[in-house]
Amino acid sequence: MPPNPAEAAQAWAQSLETLRDAAWGRLVRGVRDKRAPARHVTLSTYGRNGWPQARIVVLRGADKAAATLEVHTDLRSAKIAELQADPRAMLHVWDDRARLQIRAEARAEILTGPQVSDRWARIPEGSRIAYGSRPAPGQPILTALDYAKQPSVQDFAVLILHVQAFDLVHLGSDHRRARFERAGGWTGAWLSP
Amino acid sequence: MPPNPAEAAQAWAQSLETLRDAAWGRLVRGVRDKRAPARHVTLSTYGRNGWPQARIVVLRGADKAAATLEVHTDLRSAKIAELQADPRAMLHVWDDRARLQIRAEARAEILTGPQVSDRWARIPEGSRIAYGSRPAPGQPILTALDYAKQPSVQDFAVLILHVQAFDLVHLGSDHRRARFERAGGWTGAWLSP
Repeated sequence: MPPNPAEAAQAWAQSLETLRDAAWGRLVRGVRDKRAPARHVTLSTYGRNGWPQARIVVLRGADKAAATLEVHTDLRSAKIAELQADPRAMLHVWDDRARLQIRAEARAEILTGPQVSDRWARIPEGSRIAYGSRPAPGQPILTALDYAKQPSVQDFAVLILHVQAFDLVHLGSDHRRARFERAGGWTGAWLSP
Repeated sequence: MPPNPAEAAQAWAQSLETLRDAAWGRLVRGVRDKRAPARHVTLSTYGRNGWPQARIVVLRGADKAAATLEVHTDLRSAKIAELQADPRAMLHVWDDRARLQIRAEARAEILTGPQVSDRWARIPEGSRIAYGSRPAPGQPILTALDYAKQPSVQDFAVLILHVQAFDLVHLGSDHRRARFERAGGWTGAWLSP
């Protein structure tokens, strides 16, 4: 008898190792596939105004071996000032197709200037307008369109997010939750969901 | 000539008032329609372990007049302990259909016990299993399914999120961004996107 498709789809959720690998698989797919659920992820930081902050960002890199994720942004955006003050961030994904929530506690390293010129060279010209608004992102303007897009490598920043811990929740016919830590060699442990 | 559909769809983004009202409209729709983009929203808090925390929650209420949003959770979940320590939260939505990002800075009020018995009575029996896992959510367990669902009104908590500020970004053919504050009567101001 062929396996029940619903059960087969959930096989990866049943062991700690395959659950963790599935999370990396979904993240890698987010980088490669513009339509994947993990293409757009939410980055949370400590706000300079005292409030937790969160915003959508495009996932640009996912390296399982190094346990790092990559995001690109404008060097003058609020998230950079926030991460300079406190590099602790959470990257959050709700992958509706896999019914998987990925929560990554990650320390942000900010790369700029000569460190990012290779990456800048690989960004299509039309996509560079995301980096270099005048005035800077978040500055007050008088009317809605009172700004200009002036792409500039000087305003381009790369965040390397060094994942310290994953909290994964799979909402299948059963619910499963596990936490994995870099300090524990990513072996993981089950939690009550 | 009929209006260009793409332009018509963006008409609401062109004034501060209609942009703000559109955000409320999308939130209200998230409460009413299980398939709406604002049905599942991301709630960010200050983590007790020192890291920003974020998780998906179901939007259960949106009241424009009071500027409040409502979320239900297990009283023993980490987010409750976090909000008891610091009530400042951010509720984040990326509404792909409207191309609208909603970021709400909100102060969380936690309701429990007799304050929530009316709401508990209205929750279908099958949905109550979200409140009352044994052991409590986030507690270590030996194997993945080593927990029981025991719905309990004692474990049911309602978060009333009193919105203090909205940061809205519309990614249409033009990008528009504005911030609205309760203290400013929600009149709003444009920001560079």
